[in-house]
Amino acid sequence: MIPPALLKQFEDLAGADNLFTAPADLHTYSYDAAVLEPALPALAVRPLTVEQLGGLVRLCNEHGLPLTVRGSGTNLSGGTIPAAGGVVVLTNALNRILEINSADMYARVQPGVITAKFAAAVAGQKLFYPPDPGSQAVSTLGGNVAENAGGLRGLKYGVTRDYVMGLSYYDVEGGLVKTGAKTVKCVTGYNLAGLMVGSEGTLGVVSEITLKLVPPPLAARAMMAVYDDVDKASQSVAAIIAAHIVPATLEFLDRFTIRAVEDYSHAGLPTQAAALLLIEVDGHPAQVAEEAAHVEEICRQQGAVRLEVATDAAQRDRVWEARRAALSALAKLKPTTVLEDATVPRSQIPAMIAALNSIARTHNLTIGTFGHAGDGNLHPTICCDKRDHQEWQRVEAAVEAIFKKALELGGTLSGEHGIGLAKSRFLEMETSRASVEWSRRLKKALDPKGILNPGKIIGG
Amino acid sequence: MIPPALLKQFEDLAGADNLFTAPADLHTYSYDAAVLEPALPALAVRPLTVEQLGGLVRLCNEHGLPLTVRGSGTNLSGGTIPAAGGVVVLTNALNRILEINSADMYARVQPGVITAKFAAAVAGQKLFYPPDPGSQAVSTLGGNVAENAGGLRGLKYGVTRDYVMGLSYYDVEGGLVKTGAKTVKCVTGYNLAGLMVGSEGTLGVVSEITLKLVPPPLAARAMMAVYDDVDKASQSVAAIIAAHIVPATLEFLDRFTIRAVEDYSHAGLPTQAAALLLIEVDGHPAQVAEEAAHVEEICRQQGAVRLEVATDAAQRDRVWEARRAALSALAKLKPTTVLEDATVPRSQIPAMIAALNSIARTHNLTIGTFGHAGDGNLHPTICCDKRDHQEWQRVEAAVEAIFKKALELGGTLSGEHGIGLAKSRFLEMETSRASVEWSRRLKKALDPKGILNPGKIIGG
Repeated sequence: MIPPALLKQFEDLAGADNLFTAPADLHTYSYDAAVLEPALPALAVRPLTVEQLGGLVRLCNEHGLPLTVRGSGTNLSGGTIPAAGGVVVLTNALNRILEINSADMYARVQPGVITAKFAAAVAGQKLFYPPDPGSQAVSTLGGNVAENAGGLRGLKYGVTRDYVMGLSYYDVEGGLVKTGAKTVKCVTGYNLAGLMVGSEGTLGVVSEITLKLVPPPLAARAMMAVYDDVDKASQSVAAIIAAHIVPATLEFLDRFTIRAVEDYSHAGLPTQAAALLLIEVDGHPAQVAEEAAHVEEICRQQGAVRLEVATDAAQRDRVWEARRAALSALAKLKPTTVLEDATVPRSQIPAMIAALNSIARTHNLTIGTFGHAGDGNLHPTICCDKRDHQEWQRVEAAVEAIFKKALELGGTLSGEHGIGLAKSRFLEMETSRASVEWSRRLKKALDPKGILNPGKIIGG
Repeated sequence: MIPPALLKQFEDLAGADNLFTAPADLHTYSYDAAVLEPALPALAVRPLTVEQLGGLVRLCNEHGLPLTVRGSGTNLSGGTIPAAGGVVVLTNALNRILEINSADMYARVQPGVITAKFAAAVAGQKLFYPPDPGSQAVSTLGGNVAENAGGLRGLKYGVTRDYVMGLSYYDVEGGLVKTGAKTVKCVTGYNLAGLMVGSEGTLGVVSEITLKLVPPPLAARAMMAVYDDVDKASQSVAAIIAAHIVPATLEFLDRFTIRAVEDYSHAGLPTQAAALLLIEVDGHPAQVAEEAAHVEEICRQQGAVRLEVATDAAQRDRVWEARRAALSALAKLKPTTVLEDATVPRSQIPAMIAALNSIARTHNLTIGTFGHAGDGNLHPTICCDKRDHQEWQRVEAAVEAIFKKALELGGTLSGEHGIGLAKSRFLEMETSRASVEWSRRLKKALDPKGILNPGKIIGG
C-alpha cells in the first residue's frame, strides 16, 4: 500500500486519470508472457510526457518504491513482472514517432511506439527497420530496446542493438542521460546506449530512442522446403550457412508445430511433413535469383521432398503469418506453454534439434520446436500443465537439460527473450563468477536503492 | 619509481626479459599519435600469456599503480598516454589468432593481433572482416576494441562495435569476466561487451575477443570523381546518400590534401582539382554495375568534371593507398599535425565542409580536410607548429569552433578517434551533466582506486 500523501504526489505529477489502483488493473499488470508467479503492484501510472516519466523515476527513488516499466507486457522471461507493492509505469501514452529522417536514414521515437506501426511508417518513406520480434504487432520499441529484441531477420540484419544509435534515459535520480548520436560513427563517451540495450529496465528509464534505418531490399523471394526427416531439414540449415549464404530469414518448424499451426491458421502447411524450412532471401534481384537457386539446390541435395516458391505476395504473407502464429497455436494446446530460446552456433543446429527430441523423450514431455534456425536461435516449446506437479518437475528438469546442452554446444542461455526473473540463477553457469559480480557492482552504483526493476538479470 | 621489492613481483610474474625500465623504453611508451604532452611511465611490461596479463592487473590494483594497456600506440586522442609513474602493459606478445570458424563465421583472437594481418587471415578463408581503421597496418584488434575504431568502410559495414560478439576481460581485481557469445543473438546478462567497446581501457583489460565475420562481397568497383569546386563535391556526397545508395566507401579529399598526398605518394592524383571523391561500391556484380552507374550519374549531375573508374586491382589499390597515406602526407608538412574527427549527419557534409573553410580563414590556419564523407566523419587536419604559441592559441580556438559547429549540425565530437585525454573536457557539451555523472559512478564502481587508464574519457 502506498500512503495517501504519497499517492497524492503521484496524482499531482501524472493526473488522477493516469493512476490505476483498482484490483482489476493491478492484476492486469501483475504478470507477463513468462510462466512465472504474478506479483501485484501497488500502483500503475501512465505518464503523458517524458517530463512526467522523469518525475516518476525521481519520486519512486526518493521513496524507495520499486519501479517496473511496462510496454505491452509480451516479455517471455518475467522482465515486466513488477515487484510486489511496487509501481508499474506504462509507456503506452508515450507513443510519438518524433522524426523519420530520410536523408540521414534515422528515426527518433518515444518508447511506447508499437514496433510494427513504426516499421510501417518507415516503409512509407521507402526505408526499412529490420528487427521483427514475434510480438511486433503489439510490442513497443522501448520494450524491444530493454530486451534487445531479436526476430526472424536476425540472421542477416541483426537485432535491436544493431539499430540503436542513441538514447535518452532517466537515471534513477531523474537526471537525463544522453548518449550516442544521429551519426553512424560516434565514440563520444562510454557506449551507454550499448549497455542500456538489453538491460531490462534495471539501470535507467528510456525516454527517447534514435534508430538506424536502412534502404529496403530491392527484391525478395520466399520458399518452403518440405522434409520427411527432421535430420535432413537441420542438415540443410547447416549446409546453407556453410555455403556462406545469408538469407533474410531461415525458419524451422517440426512436425508437431506444423500440425498445431495448420490447425490454428489453415495456411495450407503440409501436415504430413516431418519438418519444414521457411526461407526468404532478399537483396538485388540478380542476387536473389542466384541465392534462391543455390538454396533450392542445397535443400534438394540434403533430401527435401518438395520445394515451393511463393509466387505472389499473398502466398508469401500467408506462410509467414502462419509461422508468426506458431506460439499462439502451440499455446492453445495445453494450459501452460514454456517457450525457450537457448541458442547455438548455427552449425550446431542439427545437434541441438537431435538433443531436443532426446530430451523430450527422456522427460516424457511434448516439445514442439520451431524458430530462427538460421541464426541458431530455436524455440523449443513445452506444452504442459503447471498444475500437474509431477509433470512440472519434469519440465523444469528438461529446461535445465536444454540450457546445459546449448552451452555444451558453444551456445547461450538466451538468444532474444532475456534473462529476467526466469534465468537469473543460470547466469553464472554461462558467464563466470566475476561477470555476475561485475554486473552487480555496476547495478549497485547506478541504482543504489535497487528500485529499478528489482531482481531481473542478476537476481535479488 | 617502483620500489625494488615490487619490481621483483613484476619480474616473478612476467619474467625479467619482459620488463622495461630503461629511459629510452619509457620514453617510447610516454606518448601516442595525439598532440599532447607525453608522460613517463615507471615500467613497461610485456605479458606472454593472458594469465600473466590478469596477474599484472591484480598486482597493479593491489599497489594502486596506474595501468595503461598499449597496443601499437596509434591513438589520436591520448588514450595510450600513461599516467606519469604508472605501468604500461604491452599486448604485442598476445598476438595469436585462436580460431577462425568458417562454418559459423566468427573468429577468436588475442588483443595484440594486428588488424590487417587478421583481415588477411580471414580473407584467406574466403571471409571478410570489414573494419579498416587508417592505422590497420600496425593497429591491434585490442586497440580497435578499446577505441571502437572505425575506418573507411563504416558507411556500409559499421565499426568495430558491430563486429564484437563476445569478450573476455580482467576486472580490476584480476577476475575474468566473460560476456557475449559465438552466436548472432545473445541476451544472457548485461551487454558488457557493448560497454567495453570504446571504453578506452578504463573499465577492464581485454584478454580475448570474439569477432563476427561476413561473406566477402562478390564484386566491387572503385571510381574517382574530380571536381573544380569543393561545394559540388560535398553536394555529390549528400545526393548519393539521399538516393539511399550505400557505397562501401565514400571518401573526400580537398585540394590541399590532394596535393600533399600526391607529393608524398605519386599516385597520379589530379593536383589541379578543387576536391576529389573516392567511391567504391560492392556487392553482387549486377548491383555493383547499377550502383556504380547511378553514382556516376549523380556525380556528373552535381558537376564532376571527370570520372575515372579503376580498370584493374592495381589502379584501385594505388588510389586507396594514396588515400590511406593522407595523414602521413599532411604530417610531413609541418612539425605539428592536429587531426580532428568531429562527425555530422551525412546530409550536413556540405555545411560542415563550408564551415571548415571558414574556420581556417577566420583563424588564419592551414586546414587540410579529407575523410569518410559518406558517414559524415571528416578529418580536418591542422598543419601547424605547436612551438609557435600565438599560432597554437589559434589552433585551440579553431578546434573548439569545429566541435561547436559539428554539434550545431546535429553531429558528435568524435566519430572514431575517441575522447581520451584530448576531448574529455568537452564531453558534457555534447551529452549532459547526468551523462558524465552516470559515467563517473560506473567507473568508480568498477575501478574504485581509479588505476585503469586514469583520466581518459571522463577526466581525472
